[in-house]
Amino acid sequence: MHISELDTPAVLIDLDIAERNLRRVADYASAHKLRLRPHTKTHKIPAIGRRQIELGAAGLTVAKTTEAEVMLEANPQELLIAYPVVGPKKLERLASLAGKTDISVSVDSVEAARGISEAASAHGVTVGILAEFDAGLHRVGVAGAEALLQLVRHIATMPGLEFRGIAFYPGHIKDLNTGIGAELGELDAAVTSATELLELNGYQVRVVSGGSTPTLFQSHCVRRLNEIRPGTYIFNDRNTWLSGACSQDDCAVSVLTTVVSTAVRGQVIIDGGSKTFSSDRCVVADVAGFGYFPEAPQAILTKMNEEHGFVSVAETDRNWRVGERVRVMPNHVCVVMNLHPEVYGIRGERVEQIWTVKGRGKLQ
Amino acid sequence: MHISELDTPAVLIDLDIAERNLRRVADYASAHKLRLRPHTKTHKIPAIGRRQIELGAAGLTVAKTTEAEVMLEANPQELLIAYPVVGPKKLERLASLAGKTDISVSVDSVEAARGISEAASAHGVTVGILAEFDAGLHRVGVAGAEALLQLVRHIATMPGLEFRGIAFYPGHIKDLNTGIGAELGELDAAVTSATELLELNGYQVRVVSGGSTPTLFQSHCVRRLNEIRPGTYIFNDRNTWLSGACSQDDCAVSVLTTVVSTAVRGQVIIDGGSKTFSSDRCVVADVAGFGYFPEAPQAILTKMNEEHGFVSVAETDRNWRVGERVRVMPNHVCVVMNLHPEVYGIRGERVEQIWTVKGRGKLQ
Repeated sequence: MHISELDTPAVLIDLDIAERNLRRVADYASAHKLRLRPHTKTHKIPAIGRRQIELGAAGLTVAKTTEAEVMLEANPQELLIAYPVVGPKKLERLASLAGKTDISVSVDSVEAARGISEAASAHGVTVGILAEFDAGLHRVGVAGAEALLQLVRHIATMPGLEFRGIAFYPGHIKDLNTGIGAELGELDAAVTSATELLELNGYQVRVVSGGSTPTLFQSHCVRRLNEIRPGTYIFNDRNTWLSGACSQDDCAVSVLTTVVSTAVRGQVIIDGGSKTFSSDRCVVADVAGFGYFPEAPQAILTKMNEEHGFVSVAETDRNWRVGERVRVMPNHVCVVMNLHPEVYGIRGERVEQIWTVKGRGKLQ
Repeated sequence: MHISELDTPAVLIDLDIAERNLRRVADYASAHKLRLRPHTKTHKIPAIGRRQIELGAAGLTVAKTTEAEVMLEANPQELLIAYPVVGPKKLERLASLAGKTDISVSVDSVEAARGISEAASAHGVTVGILAEFDAGLHRVGVAGAEALLQLVRHIATMPGLEFRGIAFYPGHIKDLNTGIGAELGELDAAVTSATELLELNGYQVRVVSGGSTPTLFQSHCVRRLNEIRPGTYIFNDRNTWLSGACSQDDCAVSVLTTVVSTAVRGQVIIDGGSKTFSSDRCVVADVAGFGYFPEAPQAILTKMNEEHGFVSVAETDRNWRVGERVRVMPNHVCVVMNLHPEVYGIRGERVEQIWTVKGRGKLQ
């Protein structure tokens, strides 16, 4: 099928770029002896998870129990739920998953660990636990090596749990482009001291898991880190590009849209708004717009309603017509994938792959 | 089922409030002899569209052809696609829909009208047309009565089309709470002069369609207006409340969430982030947060990642625990409905209704 046969809005994935992104990170991980456990929240498609495993991923990462159920189809050796699993229905699902594959969960509280322990014990299964450490982002994770040790002491005594190591999310580290954020050296020091304190107290820290896409290629500088969980790297997006973590040529995703109105001077309306792109803004301050137009870089997606993308075209030198199509690189690909029932893998102008986004809307 | 048996995040609809909202607007429309054609983008559920019709709605409104296909299940006498239908696949769908019910489309360009005319003619069907008028929002719609007349002249000559009137969206009108926006009198004058110019030129303007939720109860002040298309009024949300168009007691929607982390002092993490609430901000300047906590008004949903809601609880006087549940009134209900496969109708603490959101993710 030719791209022109697709209805819009349609998410296009450049297959060659995505494959190159996958291989680059697999090679990096291999070169630095880092286990790669990609976060599948970016693509939400089991067939792509399978491809990541074929290229050397040791396992896969998800955020929710319902996502884990979907990702079982990729037949991973190990699944990490990088999110505190809390509440009876989720614990039921978790115990059932643990009967099907090797499951770990990252937790930052005794309460969450106790819930998992009780569910695992009741079902006669074992769940791996990574103790979540706040490396500076202040999202989840206990603060400081001493608090981490206290948490691990509790985990180690609970039936049905197997303490495997620690996890953190380095979302606060200095952006390569803007230079805003914390120093990598501070992260390295914090991870080292936390790991050493646990070891000093007799705990084997088999897994030290971190690694987001923006900091991906600096992962080897955190000495004790031995596992990375990047997600966005497979497709990349405008935010990844503008933060300096990839080049424009590494962005595999765009959204094909149609111009539906040119009635207002200096502006066109495209048939993609917040229901197509989400309302996620550009992470780099002073950069305008909810997306980037590779074919018309002067166009700015200034505003969105659910179905209307307001594009300022005053600075462009083309004559915009109702019915023409234009591609938009989204700010944040993960949320875009969650909004689309299907996405399309392309090579040049050919649609070679139609994927159902099986993990879309898996909230629990 | 009791609410406590639901997994989180879960969208709760208070059935009594929603029913009261539906009746209030049906009564208002009836009292002022306004045809009510609710926009179903807010609920996306055919059974609810059916209820709107039972309470006197003359027809239903949708934004996309795929939404129209879903809403056929409500068996509406008339469907309005309040969006320019552009592109071959959508035109195929439109022609097919026109064989099943009475369909109108609002258009603002000769190009869009021509596409619809060709598709309708090819399939031997008739599509009603509302000429879209820019009443001041500068989104879609031709500017000024003269330009509207030119568009209508074209529409009137095209086979397969039936010119029925004009449409506009009064999203720019003064907010009752903040007082920001244009005067209603200007809208009234613009609509009157546009309608009169068309009539003077021999066109019968059967439908004058406007009316959003924020301006809903001022609709009768626009003298030539005879149809309203509110959407949000059925549930309302934090934005509707803060803009002064309803009271807090009129908000039927909340999202039930679970506290999953209390590790960072002064903050809790709930299991709903932008994948649950969208990233839509509060429309009222200087009001913080991505939602409102009716049970803890001092709590602020300051930030979101996809699965993490960052709640500042420093100013609250309760002791937050991992595992407890808390309700959040979302900023914008329409986008929330689009993110959830199912939503739950409640009375008090009982779940009385489970709805599949059949119109979720209908983008084309």
